Amino acid sequence: MNKTDLYIYNTLKRKKELFEPLTEGRVGMYVCGPTVYGDAHLGHARPAITFDIIFRYLQFLGYKVRYVRNITDVGHLENDADEGEDKIAKKARLEELEPMEVAQYYTKRYLDAMDALNVLRPSIQPTASGHIIEQIEIVKRILDEGYAYVSNGSVYFDVVKYQRDTNKYGILSNRVIEDMIATTRELDGQGEKHNPADFALWKKASPEHIMRWRSEWSEGFPGWHLECTAMSQKYLGEQFDIHGGGLDLLFPHHESEIAQSVCAFHTEPARYWIHNNMITINGQKMGKSLGNFITLEEIFKGDHSALQQAYSPMTIRFFILQAHYRSTLDFSNEALQAAEKGLKKMFEAFDNIKRIKTGDKTSIELDLMSKATEAMNDDFNTPVVIAHLFEAVRNINLLLDGSESITEADLQRFGDDFSTILQTILGLCEQESGNEQNVVNGLMNLILDIRSQARAAKDWNTSDKLRDELSSLGITIKDGKDGVTWSRD
Amino acid sequence: MNKTDLYIYNTLKRKKELFEPLTEGRVGMYVCGPTVYGDAHLGHARPAITFDIIFRYLQFLGYKVRYVRNITDVGHLENDADEGEDKIAKKARLEELEPMEVAQYYTKRYLDAMDALNVLRPSIQPTASGHIIEQIEIVKRILDEGYAYVSNGSVYFDVVKYQRDTNKYGILSNRVIEDMIATTRELDGQGEKHNPADFALWKKASPEHIMRWRSEWSEGFPGWHLECTAMSQKYLGEQFDIHGGGLDLLFPHHESEIAQSVCAFHTEPARYWIHNNMITINGQKMGKSLGNFITLEEIFKGDHSALQQAYSPMTIRFFILQAHYRSTLDFSNEALQAAEKGLKKMFEAFDNIKRIKTGDKTSIELDLMSKATEAMNDDFNTPVVIAHLFEAVRNINLLLDGSESITEADLQRFGDDFSTILQTILGLCEQESGNEQNVVNGLMNLILDIRSQARAAKDWNTSDKLRDELSSLGITIKDGKDGVTWSRD
Repeated sequence: MNKTDLYIYNTLKRKKELFEPLTEGRVGMYVCGPTVYGDAHLGHARPAITFDIIFRYLQFLGYKVRYVRNITDVGHLENDADEGEDKIAKKARLEELEPMEVAQYYTKRYLDAMDALNVLRPSIQPTASGHIIEQIEIVKRILDEGYAYVSNGSVYFDVVKYQRDTNKYGILSNRVIEDMIATTRELDGQGEKHNPADFALWKKASPEHIMRWRSEWSEGFPGWHLECTAMSQKYLGEQFDIHGGGLDLLFPHHESEIAQSVCAFHTEPARYWIHNNMITINGQKMGKSLGNFITLEEIFKGDHSALQQAYSPMTIRFFILQAHYRSTLDFSNEALQAAEKGLKKMFEAFDNIKRIKTGDKTSIELDLMSKATEAMNDDFNTPVVIAHLFEAVRNINLLLDGSESITEADLQRFGDDFSTILQTILGLCEQESGNEQNVVNGLMNLILDIRSQARAAKDWNTSDKLRDELSSLGITIKDGKDGVTWSRD
Repeated sequence: MNKTDLYIYNTLKRKKELFEPLTEGRVGMYVCGPTVYGDAHLGHARPAITFDIIFRYLQFLGYKVRYVRNITDVGHLENDADEGEDKIAKKARLEELEPMEVAQYYTKRYLDAMDALNVLRPSIQPTASGHIIEQIEIVKRILDEGYAYVSNGSVYFDVVKYQRDTNKYGILSNRVIEDMIATTRELDGQGEKHNPADFALWKKASPEHIMRWRSEWSEGFPGWHLECTAMSQKYLGEQFDIHGGGLDLLFPHHESEIAQSVCAFHTEPARYWIHNNMITINGQKMGKSLGNFITLEEIFKGDHSALQQAYSPMTIRFFILQAHYRSTLDFSNEALQAAEKGLKKMFEAFDNIKRIKTGDKTSIELDLMSKATEAMNDDFNTPVVIAHLFEAVRNINLLLDGSESITEADLQRFGDDFSTILQTILGLCEQESGNEQNVVNGLMNLILDIRSQARAAKDWNTSDKLRDELSSLGITIKDGKDGVTWSRD
């Protein structure tokens, strides 16, 4: 198998397929990003890390990737239905803030949390509110093509006509249209639709709705599904390589995106659809009412009653990568503590590579990189990659205690491979500040050892000098019954 | 004088005026932000810090401030004129990138640099490309009012008619319209205008122009002056309190903003116009061709031939605050080194406050806060505030050596005031990472001292033990001709 023979599970085809980009050497990838009306929680970490891994691996394979992840700052309605109150506008009124102020506040907090998780920034992060004109253009196209109708100032996509002409509604989610009609709840404004399965392309704003733009149909706002069609087409073209998102977006969101593209551009938007599976917490679905809704900030600080301790961003990242992205994943203190230990072991071994003494022959296998790429090429199988890294950790320990041997050239290659897989492909890194803190702790232990030796030898000069010099660095030492403690100002 | 009696130099009136907000307790402030087609340089630091100080001080006075600073990601034309090539689109074509990818890349780098300078994020940072529909609305209004005309698919503002009807073109910049016509260069497309002083509200895109949107006049893009009118009105209202920017934007940009608002909304947009003055480098204007164009990243790293060393973000911030925002400011190594020393002295004194021994009477004046607010209320006079802080530094040193005395309650108040002025109002802080580095450096000096004493005493045991333990912390020491050096892995 060629290094670049990457197989991806394509939700659209319900099987793994060889990845072949539309344009040689380049990949266009669109992923549904966050709705920014609250703090990023565990449910945001998984898709962000899943598609970060895919972004990283495609680049590792040599592709030039344009990765677009949108920010939904308008139009995502409560109850995930077409009617109801715009989530962001509601929050804004509660806080007496401009909706955009709320959206930008939470966008920054989302990006800060993603930075902490070492998730690379996408190439473009377009906002829904910043692409109203592009969305209106697509509404016009779909109207021109006859697959939408105006009703009381709003515009609806005609699912029944689309289904009759193309037989495509359900192509992605595998649902049948009769079920869709049956599962659509009765909500205010339903009467405007010809059929309950129809979805809004443009909604006339109610008088209290703050976020609104003028259009030829009404002052209103675009339907939620439309922004992804508009922004993916604008930045990646009418057809592009990969569309990703959480499994919860499969229907109606992604199914509707396909319908919109087929009617507006006469093509399905993406060739490969990738969906990450959901997370649970102690076996339960996460939800505000269940008391297990944990924000990433709370996790990083250990500030939630369900948490026994704080978990670092890298522990969360490592934990998520220990499961395949298409499996469900259950968060529990036990599982996170195990991940924390595993990650620590991994980085200790990584640090120890430089302490390995080389010999004149190599007794271990040097197939770490080929095993890792084989696993990644099999639909980004990160748990298998991690298992191979742990095998390498065992080898490192055997090399350290002399049970195995390695030549200098092979050690160089082995170390480079380990580093590339750990840091470049999986995006795991030792957290800066923690590292700095470790060095300070280590140096302080060393100095306090010297000081107690001096005191044992009744060398008060040295002992006092150390105390004074530490004090000038803002470090206070205190001799107590149980030994010496120190603190910083 | 009341604590809240703030006087602001209003460029519009050419004098200092008592600040009175339109809505009690609230302030709306709009500031022209960066064009994101390259790295942030010294010229970006000054306006960002100037309006950060104003944002901070208004909040200190108890105002709830909505601070909007735009990001120009489209439509800012080369030569600061209406014609020419869009700067961002040009860069994108050179790098074979989507213009939005370039814009978002440099936006992130700009914000990172501003974060380093401890510049608070504005409440809203809207992008020009995200407000095309709002800009088109204003073009329509101005056309409807009769102050614009369509010419070959573009729309121009009719300066001559506006001047005839309102006599306002020049109200801010104090220019007379005949001069404006005389200073307008002849450029491609000039022939479309009725008068050379007219400016574009909407430009028809040339075939090679990438960033374009459909409008009733042409596929094109908005004129540069329009975005600020559209975004300030959207987020702050048709009239708001403060409009800020660099003095270089006074004409034609701000003058044209006023003209647009007067025609579209029948009001001048802002009641107070604040302009920061320009910077020079070693007495020269900064420019790429002069070889003195220094990015903030280069300054922070000391990575430019004109720099004798790196200067920390806080040194830059402190240096900028040492001049009043309406004075010109010259950067030189000498001046920055002096600022670095002054800032160090300031923070040393701040740290020493907690080491002051209190007594039963107070012999120093406790008017630091009233002096600082008096200076800030006089058009944000930060150099005077800093002078008062240095007076306080002298007092701290006198209190430390016992020449002056202070009670515990007064020391508490004095320390709180010093901290509020230094950190909350001026936004100066000790830099985390630099600080951590300093501690590591200090501890290493201590350990290397002990080691050389051990070696001098031929105590090889201690010397070797220290070397080994440092090595386990990832620190390598090396004995050379000129002494001991150390490095980290």
